[in-house]
Amino acid sequence: MIKQYIQSNQQRFLDELFDLLRIPSVSADSRNKADVRKAAEFIVQKLKDAGADAVELCETKGHPIVYGQKTISNSAPTVLVYGHYDVQPPDPLNLWTSPPFEPVIKDGKIFARGSCDDKGQVYMHIKAFEAMMKLNQLSCNIKFMIEGEEEVGSDNLGIFVKENKERLKADVILISDTSLISLDHPSITVGLRGLSYMEVEVTGPNRDLHSGVYGGAVANPINVLSQMIASLHDENGKVTIPGFYDKVVELSEADRKKLNEAPFDLIEYKKDLAIDEVLGEKGFTTIERTGIRPTLDANGIWGGYTGEGAKTVLPSKASVKISMRLVPNQDSHEITQLFTKHFLTIAPKSVKVKVTAHHGGEPAVTPTNSKAYKAASDAFVAVWGKAPIPTRDGGSIPIVSLFKKELGLDTVLMGFGLDSDAIHSPNEHYGVKNFLIGIETIVSFYQHFSKK
Amino acid sequence: MIKQYIQSNQQRFLDELFDLLRIPSVSADSRNKADVRKAAEFIVQKLKDAGADAVELCETKGHPIVYGQKTISNSAPTVLVYGHYDVQPPDPLNLWTSPPFEPVIKDGKIFARGSCDDKGQVYMHIKAFEAMMKLNQLSCNIKFMIEGEEEVGSDNLGIFVKENKERLKADVILISDTSLISLDHPSITVGLRGLSYMEVEVTGPNRDLHSGVYGGAVANPINVLSQMIASLHDENGKVTIPGFYDKVVELSEADRKKLNEAPFDLIEYKKDLAIDEVLGEKGFTTIERTGIRPTLDANGIWGGYTGEGAKTVLPSKASVKISMRLVPNQDSHEITQLFTKHFLTIAPKSVKVKVTAHHGGEPAVTPTNSKAYKAASDAFVAVWGKAPIPTRDGGSIPIVSLFKKELGLDTVLMGFGLDSDAIHSPNEHYGVKNFLIGIETIVSFYQHFSKK
Repeated sequence: MIKQYIQSNQQRFLDELFDLLRIPSVSADSRNKADVRKAAEFIVQKLKDAGADAVELCETKGHPIVYGQKTISNSAPTVLVYGHYDVQPPDPLNLWTSPPFEPVIKDGKIFARGSCDDKGQVYMHIKAFEAMMKLNQLSCNIKFMIEGEEEVGSDNLGIFVKENKERLKADVILISDTSLISLDHPSITVGLRGLSYMEVEVTGPNRDLHSGVYGGAVANPINVLSQMIASLHDENGKVTIPGFYDKVVELSEADRKKLNEAPFDLIEYKKDLAIDEVLGEKGFTTIERTGIRPTLDANGIWGGYTGEGAKTVLPSKASVKISMRLVPNQDSHEITQLFTKHFLTIAPKSVKVKVTAHHGGEPAVTPTNSKAYKAASDAFVAVWGKAPIPTRDGGSIPIVSLFKKELGLDTVLMGFGLDSDAIHSPNEHYGVKNFLIGIETIVSFYQHFSKK
Repeated sequence: MIKQYIQSNQQRFLDELFDLLRIPSVSADSRNKADVRKAAEFIVQKLKDAGADAVELCETKGHPIVYGQKTISNSAPTVLVYGHYDVQPPDPLNLWTSPPFEPVIKDGKIFARGSCDDKGQVYMHIKAFEAMMKLNQLSCNIKFMIEGEEEVGSDNLGIFVKENKERLKADVILISDTSLISLDHPSITVGLRGLSYMEVEVTGPNRDLHSGVYGGAVANPINVLSQMIASLHDENGKVTIPGFYDKVVELSEADRKKLNEAPFDLIEYKKDLAIDEVLGEKGFTTIERTGIRPTLDANGIWGGYTGEGAKTVLPSKASVKISMRLVPNQDSHEITQLFTKHFLTIAPKSVKVKVTAHHGGEPAVTPTNSKAYKAASDAFVAVWGKAPIPTRDGGSIPIVSLFKKELGLDTVLMGFGLDSDAIHSPNEHYGVKNFLIGIETIVSFYQHFSKK
């Protein structure tokens, strides 16, 4: 019955999602502020249309949070659905094969910024809810909390959660913002890395100089910054910031073995990325490097003359954005402090260094023995014919640890994306099949969860 | 008499120079092609107005070269004046206190891109020529060769020189494109560094990736590039490219001592640049580091997300522009090859590296015992009341070594700029006093040279 409902409404579901994808709700860019709000209003309307009560566009100091709920019975379990309607910036635009905010379907995939992360996945939940309402099948109380600042650190969601503990009471959090191993290997994410995102500005001379007149005698901020970045990893790929690994939980040999049993094809992985070799911390596999080990990556660098041709400038400034992915039990605030202290320590006296923290989030591990996890697992068995594999994801959803801390709730990370969906990259896409089977699996989750 | 002529025509001289400075003749930027030509046509007209014969806008594969001459007698010595009417890009625009192509005089200085490098200095020669013509004082034959590609490597000037050896016959080359130590310490540049300007692009994965999903497992091109840049200098500030120093001429202790006798105030130097410490090759003074030692500087770097806020991207590519200043007897082509080979050698297998050569030029040393040098020295004594100090400049005028090779001619580098003029930087400026006294000194040079 649910299958049939999805099938007969498929075109409308996609049309509505496309309307949402057309809104360039880039939370990082202040020029898109009105667009972000427009996306929030869109979510408000669609929750109302689907039958939610008490739908509210909740103002914050930043972008608004959309709340909505449907209570069927005080004795039924309550599921709190979290997701985000904001998206990453679409840059670099020239690498997109179709405009990022003009969704199109190619090869069975929806191409648009946010198609997978997270508008497409949020919209599965709204449509699953609609279907259950229409078919009179809703067997759990349901609450929606869809925010607009996930891509910039969810600063105001933390405040909202603290101020709305009563309203947000539930039995479990359900989030679709992660990936499956593949359509043949369904999986549920049970670990997420935390994040500490920093920016460093190095200033040498007080103005851009002629590199001929001054070159060789005055510290060049690009060269100095490069040296500092280079020094952040040792020859084994370990991060050199003192104290960085102090709180890292090392997995047992048995757990590592189990983790590495997940299907993974290194040859395919390298082929997909067109690289000859992977590179990472010595002594760990690729699955471990992205799942259970903390890492440090430069996300952007700039300084001096970057235009056409040659300009012989010794620039005044150079900057880098660096993010660190954290694992249990690292603390993002502590890592931010260690990073800041380290950078100021390693700076030569010939330059000035300014370190700024962008945003952070805590690592999280979710249980595999909870009722909710079992319901999610059963849903996969019912819809996919296979039990999902528990995996550790490299990405961060900072709010998961906050939910645990503030609401005392565990999260089930039932994501339907694929690592190859190019989220945060040009040509982000999301399989139409993933979108539709996701709706079906979510509905099945509610059915199983209400019976646990 | 000459003093008086300059005084009574001062305002017109400046008005004309301002007209030239208003033309954004940025040779590196293809969007400015028509402007570069307009500047060439301006020079053509002003040479004609001043009384030059055979004035010609000579086409090249790139920007045109302006030629003009005045022959007074076959027995008189001939001076070939070289200069350039093209300018550096004005970026970063936001750091200019007045627009780069809207010249203004503030505190006795002309602020505009090209005011010193080299339009202002070229224009002194045209006005010195005009004055000598008007006052019937021209005592040498004079030839002008003013090009439009100095800031992008003078590629086509080399061809022009080879094809016009007869037309360019002269006794000496006279160039004003360098600096004085100060208005109290007149100086003549007797050494120039060469240049090799490179660009390196590092490609990791074939697309921008989510740094959470892939970070720590896939080579990050920014981190890898930073490591490669960092490895180009050792702990003593020496360039690590094998063979880099092989052909460097080491100065005798006596020559080094003499070089270091030039007035130089390290405290003032640091104060002017707002730096706490200088940084450079161990065992050499600041004067030596910029005068007689080869150096390597990053001129620009870019990659990944450089916009507002945070984007957790593991970028596909990162790039850097790097230039090396060369000293006798380094060869720019050889250094370009050594650099290219070295970069390909040090690249880890996890990335692909593309190295491109922008432009180069050879280092040069000019004699201090020639008739022309002595005439220039006498001119300073006559006008400034002081003998000029011979200095080594850090910058490059690649054409100087070409003139020696192709035309067999030595050059006199009689520049009137100051190191603090911010050439190649925002707020480039040129002293009105420097401009006017420069004209007078140039006229005096001709008087002395014709009597040698």
